[in-house]
Amino acid sequence: MTASQRGVPDLDPRDFRDLLRYAADVAMRHWERLPDGAAYVRPPDALVAAVRAQPLPARGMSSREILDRIERDFVPYRLGVGQRRWWGFINSPPHPVGIAADLIATTLKNNCAGTSQIAVTVELTVMDWLARLVGLPAGSNGLLVSGGSMANLVALAACREAKLPGTRRRGLRSATGQPTVYASTEAHSCIVRAVELLGLGTEALRLVPVDGEYRMDVRALRETVAADRAAGLEPICIVASAGTVNTGVVDPLNAAADVAREYGCWFHVDGAYGAVGAALPELAGLYRGIERADSVALDPHKWLYVPYEAGATLVRDPATLRAMFAHRAEYLALEQDSYLEGPVWISDLGPQLTREFRALKVWAVMQAVGLEGYRELWRSDIAVAREVARRAREHPKLEVVAATDLSCFCVRYMPRGGDVNAFNRTLLDHTHRDGRMFISGTTLGGKFALRGCVTNYRSGLEDAQICIDTIVELGERLERESP
Amino acid sequence: MTASQRGVPDLDPRDFRDLLRYAADVAMRHWERLPDGAAYVRPPDALVAAVRAQPLPARGMSSREILDRIERDFVPYRLGVGQRRWWGFINSPPHPVGIAADLIATTLKNNCAGTSQIAVTVELTVMDWLARLVGLPAGSNGLLVSGGSMANLVALAACREAKLPGTRRRGLRSATGQPTVYASTEAHSCIVRAVELLGLGTEALRLVPVDGEYRMDVRALRETVAADRAAGLEPICIVASAGTVNTGVVDPLNAAADVAREYGCWFHVDGAYGAVGAALPELAGLYRGIERADSVALDPHKWLYVPYEAGATLVRDPATLRAMFAHRAEYLALEQDSYLEGPVWISDLGPQLTREFRALKVWAVMQAVGLEGYRELWRSDIAVAREVARRAREHPKLEVVAATDLSCFCVRYMPRGGDVNAFNRTLLDHTHRDGRMFISGTTLGGKFALRGCVTNYRSGLEDAQICIDTIVELGERLERESP
Repeated sequence: MTASQRGVPDLDPRDFRDLLRYAADVAMRHWERLPDGAAYVRPPDALVAAVRAQPLPARGMSSREILDRIERDFVPYRLGVGQRRWWGFINSPPHPVGIAADLIATTLKNNCAGTSQIAVTVELTVMDWLARLVGLPAGSNGLLVSGGSMANLVALAACREAKLPGTRRRGLRSATGQPTVYASTEAHSCIVRAVELLGLGTEALRLVPVDGEYRMDVRALRETVAADRAAGLEPICIVASAGTVNTGVVDPLNAAADVAREYGCWFHVDGAYGAVGAALPELAGLYRGIERADSVALDPHKWLYVPYEAGATLVRDPATLRAMFAHRAEYLALEQDSYLEGPVWISDLGPQLTREFRALKVWAVMQAVGLEGYRELWRSDIAVAREVARRAREHPKLEVVAATDLSCFCVRYMPRGGDVNAFNRTLLDHTHRDGRMFISGTTLGGKFALRGCVTNYRSGLEDAQICIDTIVELGERLERESP
Repeated sequence: MTASQRGVPDLDPRDFRDLLRYAADVAMRHWERLPDGAAYVRPPDALVAAVRAQPLPARGMSSREILDRIERDFVPYRLGVGQRRWWGFINSPPHPVGIAADLIATTLKNNCAGTSQIAVTVELTVMDWLARLVGLPAGSNGLLVSGGSMANLVALAACREAKLPGTRRRGLRSATGQPTVYASTEAHSCIVRAVELLGLGTEALRLVPVDGEYRMDVRALRETVAADRAAGLEPICIVASAGTVNTGVVDPLNAAADVAREYGCWFHVDGAYGAVGAALPELAGLYRGIERADSVALDPHKWLYVPYEAGATLVRDPATLRAMFAHRAEYLALEQDSYLEGPVWISDLGPQLTREFRALKVWAVMQAVGLEGYRELWRSDIAVAREVARRAREHPKLEVVAATDLSCFCVRYMPRGGDVNAFNRTLLDHTHRDGRMFISGTTLGGKFALRGCVTNYRSGLEDAQICIDTIVELGERLERESP
């Protein structure tokens, strides 16, 4: 019995190619409608119920039918990431060559744990590029992971073993002091989650206050660390943000690095979104100190326009990752001079054993854009966000809630009266129903704001105008309709 | 300035489609050569050096050039996963419709953390299918993760918070007893890694012995748990394997579940490779007790022939995941009745916030094959592995080192004299250089063995014969050449 009789169709190379081409047509039709289409469309309840109700079929169906159903039922009800004014959360449209390269990587289905396959070399190369991009010294490297949450977890795990050596083996019950970690109140929630997963406990995470611009207050940081040390606690790690998720400001990195050095702490920079800004010469002052980091988290799937999923943990000293994670399984044991042995087992540097060839899409996109190309794209994104803020500042009904260093904006509509926060929450919901753009929301200093993050190579200054017009139009309508 | 002037080419929908079609052609040429090509080719040192030496270019290059370089320099030096006799580690060739569906998902670049997008519904549906497949009761669900390491980590994290409530907040230093986890010496290394990451410490992991067939010795398990309890330790979790990585045997699940119940432990089944075998009626006896598990790890990218990366954590009670991971970021705060709100925030169930639409490829492949189709494919894989073992048993120069329940085989060549283990290590290396097949190695009871795991819809009984012939031919040559 051939494989195709056993339920795996399209095994003939030409059938295989035709199936991928058919998928490419589906992708193209989406690509064509996306930029000017609705930014978001909620799926009908009946469709949701129908998808949930369908059991696993006893017998398979044809691949073509399946793709047709995907195009009909799923594609229209996606988030509109890549629509011209999709500025929700921190999502960027994927670069086409990244999609193409990923198609090849998916077909290869290499396990990139290690061995002498070229994929391992490509990953090491990409990690070099990323380390240089943010200004880490030669010798820094690291590994690709799923995204920012994992990138920060891997870095903090390396920190835990570096600062509390042996806890990997003995566990945290063996810690004599109370290890503590420091971040600002504006740090990403994944820092909290990492501290929880690692068994340090949320109570070990000290959230230091921010200044009026939502940057870490380093004076408060130093005081907290000093007080904790005096009280017998054991400060092990300072986490600074390079591009906070709410407003995109960069913490005072150099000053935070000073405190870290003074107290013997690991210095970690969460730059999942914004670390790449270090490569913009005009922002060099803002990033001073990032080169002193022990580790940096950076997501290629954010501002490098790489398809999901692609996060990266960069470390000054790759041996710190090995000290935490190295664990060669017995069935992978190889002779040193074997034909199979490669430059490094990347699975010794992080939590995954089986790893897809995610370096290929990162390598492809970075080559296609190049450093100067990126600088132009980032400047464009920043210019769009500033244009939104500028126009909001000029508009009598709008308020800019926070400044930004990068490509975020936070604004709100000021109604004649009533609960401003409740009004803006409803207004945000109306923007989602409207669909001309997609932004999300956040609360800053008690103020609920409409928040956008521009990491979108399709956005232009004209979109900033449309964004303001949409907010004002929907806000005025909501005001008229309010009791 | 348009986006394409700013370094993002192929934005025109037709250019985009043509680029994907070009990638499809690259993929097809690989697909065509793969089944009968070399199972593995080491990349030349000069190529490795050249890839490492190239810096990030200042200016981008064309997408076509990049794909051509991928085809020329990277594709030939991949692991040959999907070659007819690729039986290394536990890798399976991807089903074509999974590659096609993934291409669409990559293009959409949905963030599947939550919202009412249809992708969330597709994931919930797939998780239902997987839970039913392994026999968990209705109401069980979970989430897709990168692979088995993460699937096991997520399950053990949920266990930690369920059995040591509040440690998420207070940390493991607050634990009054010494929490201990139990697994067999044949458990996958990712269980050790999970225990380390979670701060329990390797010393908290008790590796209980196995019987002559490398199954967990449940009598020893019970004695160890009882002795630990008597000594004041706090047993919290029993991990059984459904398909060990070395030999593919299934631990006595029902007996292990009895011990877990008796001592109030969480019962986790690592079935990353083999849990799906529970859906084979003829193996039902082997899997009795899996339905009592609190959590099961299962990798769709292993025996469901889904492209990388796709692992799954299944739990009897999804609230246990939420208790460990729920952590809605402020900037995701939404009104309950908003247009955006969906059935569940999957990011509240596991460590990732940004999540790709990995459910699409799983959904597509499972629909394409269907339950009966899978049963036929699994039976075929098992038959191939048994055929290798049968032929090895009949051959005077070969020894079968271990029995298997599923699709693994472990054999070794018996030379006239000398160090048998060293001989077989060299022999394994020679098989890699030879390229007719790809198997890996493992050590069982002090014996180094050639190990294969058949999860390959291209393999047939004739490949079992070629495998034996290759081992014997290379073994005899090595014997002749040995001093």
